[in-house]
Amino acid sequence: MAGERMRSVLWTDGGLQLIDQRKLPTELVLMRCETVEAVTRAITDMAVRGAPAIGAAGAFGLAIAAKNFNAAENSTTEELVKAIEQAKATIDAARPTAVNLTWATERVTKDLQLKVKQSPDASIAELVVHTLTLAQALAEEDVAINKRLSEFGAEVVPEGSNILHHCNTGALATVDIGTAIGVIYECHAQGKNVHVWVDETRPRLQGARLSAWELMREGVPIHLIADNAAGYLMLAGKVDVVLFGADRVAANGDVVNKIGTYKLAVVAKENSVPVYACVPTSTIDLNFLEGMGIPIEERSADEVACVQGVRIAPEGCPVFNPAFDVTPHRYLTGIITEEGVCYPPFDQSLAKAKAAAEKRRAQT
Amino acid sequence: MAGERMRSVLWTDGGLQLIDQRKLPTELVLMRCETVEAVTRAITDMAVRGAPAIGAAGAFGLAIAAKNFNAAENSTTEELVKAIEQAKATIDAARPTAVNLTWATERVTKDLQLKVKQSPDASIAELVVHTLTLAQALAEEDVAINKRLSEFGAEVVPEGSNILHHCNTGALATVDIGTAIGVIYECHAQGKNVHVWVDETRPRLQGARLSAWELMREGVPIHLIADNAAGYLMLAGKVDVVLFGADRVAANGDVVNKIGTYKLAVVAKENSVPVYACVPTSTIDLNFLEGMGIPIEERSADEVACVQGVRIAPEGCPVFNPAFDVTPHRYLTGIITEEGVCYPPFDQSLAKAKAAAEKRRAQT
Repeated sequence: MAGERMRSVLWTDGGLQLIDQRKLPTELVLMRCETVEAVTRAITDMAVRGAPAIGAAGAFGLAIAAKNFNAAENSTTEELVKAIEQAKATIDAARPTAVNLTWATERVTKDLQLKVKQSPDASIAELVVHTLTLAQALAEEDVAINKRLSEFGAEVVPEGSNILHHCNTGALATVDIGTAIGVIYECHAQGKNVHVWVDETRPRLQGARLSAWELMREGVPIHLIADNAAGYLMLAGKVDVVLFGADRVAANGDVVNKIGTYKLAVVAKENSVPVYACVPTSTIDLNFLEGMGIPIEERSADEVACVQGVRIAPEGCPVFNPAFDVTPHRYLTGIITEEGVCYPPFDQSLAKAKAAAEKRRAQT
Repeated sequence: MAGERMRSVLWTDGGLQLIDQRKLPTELVLMRCETVEAVTRAITDMAVRGAPAIGAAGAFGLAIAAKNFNAAENSTTEELVKAIEQAKATIDAARPTAVNLTWATERVTKDLQLKVKQSPDASIAELVVHTLTLAQALAEEDVAINKRLSEFGAEVVPEGSNILHHCNTGALATVDIGTAIGVIYECHAQGKNVHVWVDETRPRLQGARLSAWELMREGVPIHLIADNAAGYLMLAGKVDVVLFGADRVAANGDVVNKIGTYKLAVVAKENSVPVYACVPTSTIDLNFLEGMGIPIEERSADEVACVQGVRIAPEGCPVFNPAFDVTPHRYLTGIITEEGVCYPPFDQSLAKAKAAAEKRRAQT
């Protein structure tokens, strides 16, 4: 390993420390967030990105809201809870597509409300500490989930596989380890002798900037490719399995993930290459029966018209820039979660995984 | 029209003038080539690109070889022919995939050899002039071919279509007008009210830099997209037809074109969107029965790892960068040529178009 792995989302010295992912791979810059606004901006501007990572960042944002709650002598715990609910609304609006963000802020908020109910005598100071404890537990849980998910995933990747990976789903996209890249790390650790084709993932280039960077640091053999080259490789029989994460999975298994996932999955199916989405069960949203209704964020024209600040398109060129697409479940071989690999019919297997995760959570 | 259209490949003031396509869209720079080496370098470095445009540039390169032939008092016309054959070998090696380059240099060389045979008394000076005349005729023929091709193509594009276009196939990729973009220009001129989704076309961004630029200059409504967004648009029913060019078409209709074409065609077929390759018959190479044997050029890592000189991937990151892919003919609805639209079975329709073009050429 070329460098020690560093958590992308870390509570330290009484504040939230993030790896500023906009600066990678040329610079490894740490940034601190001390206000709800700073956390929200870091999520909107994609200093922190990846569904599980923004979930954890959102939860720590609520810990910051609690810490910054300006308690007067006659403040009530209800006012604290209100302030946290307001912070939740601000943070949730930062990015609309990934369900993990609202899932994480909701868990912290609800657990805090429960605590207030169960311990009516708890002081504001105690509740402030409790909010941080909840966020920290959520972050640690993310790491444990990714570890289990990675182990389940490694079972379906054959020895010596050429893995095609889209976007970034590694330690940078989560609190640590990763989801699809977590599976790759686990295969690598098990000596499975895998090689990764890293989709560069236009327009934000999370593959070229982030996945290539962290996979190289861990010593995993890779080749970076333009997204356009993935089909060529599949037709040539040089891809054994396609792995990616997701920002939201509907009840029927439709996957909302980084733009380009749909194209990749269609071409993989056409070439009989197995396709797996790798997600914590928190990414599964049973409120959506299918993927088509899930809101798809459109981002700015400059993400396409400029690359790292350099203009590549004519001035004034109209751009259409959806950040995500929907991959209908029929293109997926399986969905890898921390409760095991879900196979079709997904409506049943996903509900079962989701229930198992909730049961496990209730027990701890 | 925002600006007057300018020929990308033009013989003027006794030399070859090219639009330096590496500088677009930020700067419109003209460059001159006065030696065979300069022409070869312009093709290799993609100052001029696009199968028909490099064909014309190659032909003018032979005119330059003739002009620069250092005739001594006792030089023979055989020596001139020999010099031109040597220049042909140098130029042909500049790019291996597009058949138009060798097709064009071969036509000029063979016609010159024929002239020497038929007019044994022709002087070296006469043959020098003749070589230029041949190159100029070939360039004019390209314009006329594109005009006919565009008219045939416009017939298959419905009124009000959303056209998805990959790479650059316009006036910049040919001597003038273009192939797939020629069809778009013709639709636009006919008032067909078309709109174009312009694939940016990583890694060289010919779509963002060149197609967006020339379509905007002609006033055609467009939106630039990341290549990854094409599938999203097709699944959403927002693409009516896919058009692209080709660098070589095999006898069975397999198409070798810019990397990413295969993915696009597979996803289009999955969504029942018609797909047309638009090519002059000179791009059809009956020597290859199928696409799989056609040489695919691999280009430098920097094309993927850097964008316009800005590094986007970690230092030392391994890259795989094929410039083209093969789209098996089963994904194509038709192949639009200057002799009409070829439909399956392509082995028959392409041979017929090729024969018709040769007959037309023999008659002029």
